[in-house]
Amino acid sequence: MRGVARDLLILGCRQLLTLRGGWPRRGRALGELGLIRDGALLIRHGRIAAVGPRRNVERLPAARRAHRLDLGGKIVLPGFVDAHTHLLFAASRAEEYEQRIAGASYEEIARRGGGILRSVRTLRAAPEAVLLERARGWLAEFAAHGTTTIEAKSGYGLTTAAELRTLRLYRQLQHEQPVEIVPTFLGAHVVPPEFRGRADAYITFLIQRVLPRVAAEQLAEFCDVFCDRGAFTVAQARRLLAAARATGLRPRLHAEQLARTGAARLAVELEAASADHLEKINAADLRALARSSVCCTLLPGCSFHLSLREYAPARRLIEAGAIVALATDFNPGTSPTVSMPMVLALACTQMRMTPAEAIVAATLNGAYALRRAERIGSLEVGKFADLAVFDLEDYREIPYYFGVNRCVATFKRGELIASRRT
Amino acid sequence: MRGVARDLLILGCRQLLTLRGGWPRRGRALGELGLIRDGALLIRHGRIAAVGPRRNVERLPAARRAHRLDLGGKIVLPGFVDAHTHLLFAASRAEEYEQRIAGASYEEIARRGGGILRSVRTLRAAPEAVLLERARGWLAEFAAHGTTTIEAKSGYGLTTAAELRTLRLYRQLQHEQPVEIVPTFLGAHVVPPEFRGRADAYITFLIQRVLPRVAAEQLAEFCDVFCDRGAFTVAQARRLLAAARATGLRPRLHAEQLARTGAARLAVELEAASADHLEKINAADLRALARSSVCCTLLPGCSFHLSLREYAPARRLIEAGAIVALATDFNPGTSPTVSMPMVLALACTQMRMTPAEAIVAATLNGAYALRRAERIGSLEVGKFADLAVFDLEDYREIPYYFGVNRCVATFKRGELIASRRT
Repeated sequence: MRGVARDLLILGCRQLLTLRGGWPRRGRALGELGLIRDGALLIRHGRIAAVGPRRNVERLPAARRAHRLDLGGKIVLPGFVDAHTHLLFAASRAEEYEQRIAGASYEEIARRGGGILRSVRTLRAAPEAVLLERARGWLAEFAAHGTTTIEAKSGYGLTTAAELRTLRLYRQLQHEQPVEIVPTFLGAHVVPPEFRGRADAYITFLIQRVLPRVAAEQLAEFCDVFCDRGAFTVAQARRLLAAARATGLRPRLHAEQLARTGAARLAVELEAASADHLEKINAADLRALARSSVCCTLLPGCSFHLSLREYAPARRLIEAGAIVALATDFNPGTSPTVSMPMVLALACTQMRMTPAEAIVAATLNGAYALRRAERIGSLEVGKFADLAVFDLEDYREIPYYFGVNRCVATFKRGELIASRRT
Repeated sequence: MRGVARDLLILGCRQLLTLRGGWPRRGRALGELGLIRDGALLIRHGRIAAVGPRRNVERLPAARRAHRLDLGGKIVLPGFVDAHTHLLFAASRAEEYEQRIAGASYEEIARRGGGILRSVRTLRAAPEAVLLERARGWLAEFAAHGTTTIEAKSGYGLTTAAELRTLRLYRQLQHEQPVEIVPTFLGAHVVPPEFRGRADAYITFLIQRVLPRVAAEQLAEFCDVFCDRGAFTVAQARRLLAAARATGLRPRLHAEQLARTGAARLAVELEAASADHLEKINAADLRALARSSVCCTLLPGCSFHLSLREYAPARRLIEAGAIVALATDFNPGTSPTVSMPMVLALACTQMRMTPAEAIVAATLNGAYALRRAERIGSLEVGKFADLAVFDLEDYREIPYYFGVNRCVATFKRGELIASRRT
């Protein structure tokens, strides 16, 4: 199936969700799935050469010469684009999970030296080989759950060397395995011990010492800031992101997760690619986001894992016309899951997104959040053939059968990168 | 690895959770996991012949002659005992899921002819081969998620023929595949169309026509009643369960899910094996359950899937001394998951059970709920070698890495019944 030279004709798509018809998708996604029953795809050189009902695709001259793969009645959709992950970390934080269940808050644990700073200590101490081995394992799990592209942040290093190491490892991982990795510089994740009480000085350090190196080596596409209570202020975020933009990195933001600080408005002001979290936005933030081109990337895994009852107001954002994406926020503290199907289940049951809305948010709108919607996120002629194949009878069953992974095959640029027997 | 004749020595258990020391487990389960680091198991004729630290087990004469399986550092625990499932159904109800997300309640959907009655219509119409094929697929998924024993209810038939067919299919499935199936007669699941408005007459029909057939063919161990608002009353449940007990079927109950009706107190009165759900119990119910031998089987998948904020009061039950089990409630309407790891994640994050409490509830206490705790549910000499093996560093990571299945091997009576490459 790895025959790149020969065209590939994929048949037997009981439901083929193309998401055709432009981007970004605002407003209600229902009816925008571009659903084709008994669909087929023709793939050439990793891109979609034809897509449509089986009878239309099958009769193309090129289809007759192609290698045929009959899926025998599966659900086929664009590979998930997971626009927010912290891929590289050295250890789980399961003991903090237990402490939180016993009643400690996430912020209390952070004040005791746990939280992000614990991950900083373990990452700095970890040998490169260990970090690579862990990341490789998780990348394979992402692929096994139907994800073909992930954003991946630095932010557990917080020294020049450790931040650059993380971003270089992302580059190495990109070369050696097929899941597409979009690197983001998150030096402003938390104030490191070396700068305790001197957040402004740390921002200056990032601007003067780290950012130029990141830019010179072209190690990141985006610059992110954890702009929230206990992390960085709106003013600090604005200063860093302005400097980042000057070096060619596009801004994105962690915004309004723990408290409303104005970070979402900053995202609008800066025309950030994405404002992520948004659990605490107010009505004015919501209107501003809805009028903007900023993608609202919602991360319901955090609320679930932290036992919070509050989720981001997905329904109101969608109804106001905002562009909503969904992502895992894979990280060891607040959302240790790589499963986009699980995130879809959370989006449907806890945020009342419809299965169709959740799928658009997890594919085309995720691609938009990473500024790749012209290449991935939908199944249209000319786009990369990034596909997730589910052994189900209806696309709505992806979130419905929650907690179970029914993805049986994943293709990246036309090549099979994960599969399991059915 | 299927060499039954030869003893099997399992090594390389980074953490071996034995749950040794009697049953049932009341109260706080912390410290009751019987955790052994670098543990080993010796298995003979499907039962545990020795268990303990590797150095102790390895030096036994029998261990030297045994086939050796080194897991290389995995988490090993008793296979999950899932004490509440509705295994056999003909179709998903994903369209109702979408309706509920749009705002319809579970009970509204039932009144419109959806809900359980929809599953009754599809099951009655489905050919046996279709039902078997679906059930086989799900049984393999149960095993893949670490479950070695499930309870399985009838209740989508509601005629003599259809109820007997379901229970006979459970018997057939038990003969042809390795997951242990504990059959429960749930003729009193809902009033069928043929008896609309005549629930008492339906109970009489079950007692006079169906129950004697179930008993004569020994098709069920337990009799269950959905005793709740919109289903059957306490008086109806009492009448059926008394008759069932006279034929040799032990009682268990769906209790206090949709409304407080007194069903939990009935479970105590009848010394039922288990009272399941319990979201709506009051303080007096809680005390009565805690003083009784009734297992409180909690089903957090329902609250999650139905988008309800209310979960059963697990913390208060545990602190009052009740025996708490966890189960999936696998069914197409309210909890379409086969994943006990997912149920553990829900128990920890949504009901604030500790990972240790959740594991006890999902293994030993599940076995107790099925009156099998003398044979399964812990890893002690003489018990069946039912094991789940997780590719993790710590048992707390089973619920922590939510939505992802890290079970890599499952053994039933010493035989490998599911595995995946790691």
